[in-house]
Amino acid sequence: MREIFEAELKQVGDDLAEMSRLVESAVNRAGQALLTADLQLAQSVIGDDHTIDALERELDERCVLLLAQQQPVATDLRVVVSALRMSATLERMGDLARHIAQVARGRYPGRAIEPSLHRTFEQMHDAAVRVARRTTTLLTTRDLTVAANIERDDDLLDKLHQDTFSALLDGTWTGTPQETVDVTLVGRYYERFGDHGVSIAKRVTYLVTGEFADDRGAPRAPRARPPDPPPGAPARPAQTTVARPDLRTGHGRAGGVGPVSGPGSRPPRRPRQRPRGRGSGRPS
Amino acid sequence: MREIFEAELKQVGDDLAEMSRLVESAVNRAGQALLTADLQLAQSVIGDDHTIDALERELDERCVLLLAQQQPVATDLRVVVSALRMSATLERMGDLARHIAQVARGRYPGRAIEPSLHRTFEQMHDAAVRVARRTTTLLTTRDLTVAANIERDDDLLDKLHQDTFSALLDGTWTGTPQETVDVTLVGRYYERFGDHGVSIAKRVTYLVTGEFADDRGAPRAPRARPPDPPPGAPARPAQTTVARPDLRTGHGRAGGVGPVSGPGSRPPRRPRQRPRGRGSGRPS
Repeated sequence: MREIFEAELKQVGDDLAEMSRLVESAVNRAGQALLTADLQLAQSVIGDDHTIDALERELDERCVLLLAQQQPVATDLRVVVSALRMSATLERMGDLARHIAQVARGRYPGRAIEPSLHRTFEQMHDAAVRVARRTTTLLTTRDLTVAANIERDDDLLDKLHQDTFSALLDGTWTGTPQETVDVTLVGRYYERFGDHGVSIAKRVTYLVTGEFADDRGAPRAPRARPPDPPPGAPARPAQTTVARPDLRTGHGRAGGVGPVSGPGSRPPRRPRQRPRGRGSGRPS
Repeated sequence: MREIFEAELKQVGDDLAEMSRLVESAVNRAGQALLTADLQLAQSVIGDDHTIDALERELDERCVLLLAQQQPVATDLRVVVSALRMSATLERMGDLARHIAQVARGRYPGRAIEPSLHRTFEQMHDAAVRVARRTTTLLTTRDLTVAANIERDDDLLDKLHQDTFSALLDGTWTGTPQETVDVTLVGRYYERFGDHGVSIAKRVTYLVTGEFADDRGAPRAPRARPPDPPPGAPARPAQTTVARPDLRTGHGRAGGVGPVSGPGSRPPRRPRQRPRGRGSGRPS
């Protein structure tokens, strides 16, 4: 049974990595299409998005079957539930790449990005491609230094996003309403793309270290207990523990999503402090 | 065991409905704050969002414990997995309400929405509040006529969103860049809010009818099979069926998320056809 379970879990990990590779390709082509007004490239991103969507559905069905057939507990269960969450996040990243491509297509043969902001969006493109590439690496290696680099790229995306607002709102902007709309939306798409990368980085970090922080840097709430049974119901069975991963035993890691390459003795990291309300897409 | 399971599943349903009520309150206050430049109301939405986030975490932990302790299969398993998905969607709807409130706060004592678009955003506000209210009703009654009404409200939100682009881009717009940015972002937040409502409507419809359509109206891909076991592994156990809900027996519905009030003999509905690429936030 354990061999079957590990083979199935490995397939889930492979599917996640494959989704991430497709997202990386999509966001890379979308940004190039945007910056160079390449209609064919934009069309290819828009046309390919269904592949990512299909992979998400397959992966979800695989996870549900895995839950039904193998009934995992403890760390194994958390790995499967995390995979369900990460597949939804990757699907959304694919959508954002498609939205960027749609803006490029909508302005063709013109360029969506006004020349004075070309360099800023070039940097956003580079950072987003790095986020996607590192997400693939993180999913296949679980190397937490990669997770930290994703967070740094996301910080850069946030900073560049603020730069776009500064350019629009400093009183010198002479772009058309269409150009203003495009900068606003594409900036938002890149900013969200980075947020989703961080979401995956946090989930993988949690699987490796057992620590999870939400977007405001606060530790997760204590685990909720199920409600008391109604009067007259049979006594509750012995508590089933849903364990956080244990680095000392490494339990659940060998069978996890992708091989583990990080040092087993790495101490848990402190969650990064985040200012409240980040990701709102609004200049403060 | 069954009584415990149903009590725990009922608690999951109650938590989802509670999240939805909080989202309804948040989006209602956020829109009022936006339209009337009410700083205190905006602050209250921003300050309360952590309650929705905390409820999501609690609900997720409850679902993971439920999977570990009760190891549900068939429809019960799909109900729990759907609850995990819907809690993430509701949390995101709360974030969008917070973003709207942040725009209102950022422009105070001014108004974010330029007067010529006040009526359009008033209608978006009304539609979004209806989406949230109907989501609560749907989660507590599973009445599929409510799901259809959510889709209609979302169509209206999409249409109003297009109206905002028309106003910005028809050559008569004289708003400042800040006003253009605000209309673009707030319009996008409302449009996404509607999409999330539809996502929940589709999930509940799936739980009731067994039919699920993605955003492009295509039926879901056939269920994936787990990979073959590696050579030398023990033979695979008898296939565990992960059933779609069966309306003839009603299995899994009585123990589902909230009571079922819809007629048990309602035939499965055809998924609504959706144009490809909707929700991109871009005028075509």
